[in-house]
Amino acid sequence: MTHEPLPPGSTIGIVGGGQLGRMLAQAAAKLGFRTAIFAPEGESPAFDVATESYCAAYDDVAALTQFAQESGAVTFEFENIPADALAIIESYSRLSPSRRALEVAQDRLRERRFLTSLDLPVAPHEAIEDASALADACDRLISDVPGARLYLKRARHGYDGKGQIKIESGGSIENARIWLGSDTALLEREVPYALELSVICVRNSLGETAFYDLPHNIHRDGVLRESVVPASLEAGVQDLARGHVGRIAAALDYVGVLAVEMFFLHGSVEPRLLINEIAPRVHNSGHWTLNACPVNQFENHVRAVAGWPIGSTERHSNARLVNLLGEEANGWRALLHDHPSRCLTLYGKHKPRPGRKMGHYIDLTPKS
Amino acid sequence: MTHEPLPPGSTIGIVGGGQLGRMLAQAAAKLGFRTAIFAPEGESPAFDVATESYCAAYDDVAALTQFAQESGAVTFEFENIPADALAIIESYSRLSPSRRALEVAQDRLRERRFLTSLDLPVAPHEAIEDASALADACDRLISDVPGARLYLKRARHGYDGKGQIKIESGGSIENARIWLGSDTALLEREVPYALELSVICVRNSLGETAFYDLPHNIHRDGVLRESVVPASLEAGVQDLARGHVGRIAAALDYVGVLAVEMFFLHGSVEPRLLINEIAPRVHNSGHWTLNACPVNQFENHVRAVAGWPIGSTERHSNARLVNLLGEEANGWRALLHDHPSRCLTLYGKHKPRPGRKMGHYIDLTPKS
Repeated sequence: MTHEPLPPGSTIGIVGGGQLGRMLAQAAAKLGFRTAIFAPEGESPAFDVATESYCAAYDDVAALTQFAQESGAVTFEFENIPADALAIIESYSRLSPSRRALEVAQDRLRERRFLTSLDLPVAPHEAIEDASALADACDRLISDVPGARLYLKRARHGYDGKGQIKIESGGSIENARIWLGSDTALLEREVPYALELSVICVRNSLGETAFYDLPHNIHRDGVLRESVVPASLEAGVQDLARGHVGRIAAALDYVGVLAVEMFFLHGSVEPRLLINEIAPRVHNSGHWTLNACPVNQFENHVRAVAGWPIGSTERHSNARLVNLLGEEANGWRALLHDHPSRCLTLYGKHKPRPGRKMGHYIDLTPKS
Repeated sequence: MTHEPLPPGSTIGIVGGGQLGRMLAQAAAKLGFRTAIFAPEGESPAFDVATESYCAAYDDVAALTQFAQESGAVTFEFENIPADALAIIESYSRLSPSRRALEVAQDRLRERRFLTSLDLPVAPHEAIEDASALADACDRLISDVPGARLYLKRARHGYDGKGQIKIESGGSIENARIWLGSDTALLEREVPYALELSVICVRNSLGETAFYDLPHNIHRDGVLRESVVPASLEAGVQDLARGHVGRIAAALDYVGVLAVEMFFLHGSVEPRLLINEIAPRVHNSGHWTLNACPVNQFENHVRAVAGWPIGSTERHSNARLVNLLGEEANGWRALLHDHPSRCLTLYGKHKPRPGRKMGHYIDLTPKS
């Protein structure tokens, strides 16, 4: 489906009020749009930079209706939006990425089935529809690789290493079963990998698709700490990864920025890449585009959602993105001291809870 | 005077709600500040991106007081702010740049006296305190260069070619006298020049001073149309220009971004540069820094005003800035079509009046 481009002066509605919503709102304003943020939390940092703020619960039909009616296009900054809220938004405005893309990414089991249906490579896994099936599934996954580590991941509501548990022995299977309760889950075998990568892709309703260079992502405790571009990759790997993501985007008739996390495996095993997770939104590992590209991921997401032409994803500099978690952001003076060209962004969050993403900085170096 | 740096989460108050205020507010938010805009016009584009909006007249003491009390630091986007309003702001907050810098720039006669007191080169001119003195002053200025063109510029409230009139012959002196009425004015002899340049400088309360590369500015009908970096300059000219501006900034104990427009003269005449105008604020001819520098003029202004370290003014790319006036901004589709790496900014203004600055775009090319 194609739409007439949304003219400047229209309102872009954004569901979610965190740092991604904040940076999306800033990008939309840069293009002359008004912005509306819908978020339940009163201290949402995106409220501070938006034209209109809707601070309301996701079951507040009146607020959702008004938000959607005033928005020429609606997008979102996170995927765990209740289906009923989406249905209301869709009745009054155009939603991008689509509800289907969001539903595929909301549920790890559905995501795996979707990837498998496209013949895309994923780690060995089992669907756990019922906790009683866990022990047998563990046995099956471990039979090829005795002693391998398994991860049990709740099908829904997981992010940043949350909603998952490690299984290393028989005793921990029982613990995991109790932890899971009546939820469904994905049981996955850990595959040793050399690098974590992500593909940040943008696609519009005409099917025009562009890719930023792949960052090499460094996680600790399940949370992204650094993304570095360019990643040190053998010839062909970047194209292979982009090819995978292009197929995902096309299959979902995707509109907006799509981020796909991947593992690049050691040695010469095939497949070289395993797809880990789809995020139907702008992504932390794409923040370096803010300073290293003429058109960053936030602006390209807004352009796609508004039906505008996709902007260049070219990179003019090498970049290293470092996340600031919790109290680390309080060190902004030291971070800038002796680093005059450091690009610092703070998210305007009030409480630096441990592990909370409070900001980031980007160091640029000449392009290699 | 030095201050403790203003911590993120504090409010930066900005007087004026146009595109400069809008881009200042976005830069402040990027550093984790809250923002407050004070502007009398209800449709001020900066309101759309700020945390708090004060839509009130400059003689609304209650509104000014609240605005200043809530702001950890106050700055402005334009220089014609009434003195009484400034006095109220200064009683409750810290104002940067200082009132003195603003007062020097508000009045062309005072500005010329200030520049002359620093032995800085300006065009031949006469102060017109009384319209009856105009004819004699014209005679004196023309005596060296018969037939030269003169400009009569009102001492106050001139910008973008407004508030000035050309004098080419005896008859037009009489017209100019009537036009001026009881105002004071600067009478200036036009000096043929090769290039219009500007120096964008940033200085903090510690006296740390940095300069962006000089853009070559192209005006039409008194309005800036394009700024190009690097300007094609002989060796030494950039340093000479920066030296002049460094002296201005130091003499004013300046805090923030300071823009100084200059003319680079033809041939080998001395002085090579004449100073045309001081703007105690971020400047249109510095918009290219948004995309060509790791720290742009808006962020560096906020950093200085907040007492933070100055960021790098290095440039990673060549850039051409083009202003979009009036209906030109309606051509955004054509401007982006076939130019995927073009960096477009629209200011969110509702009415594209002829000549009104509605947006700009920046084209980057590899650094030379």
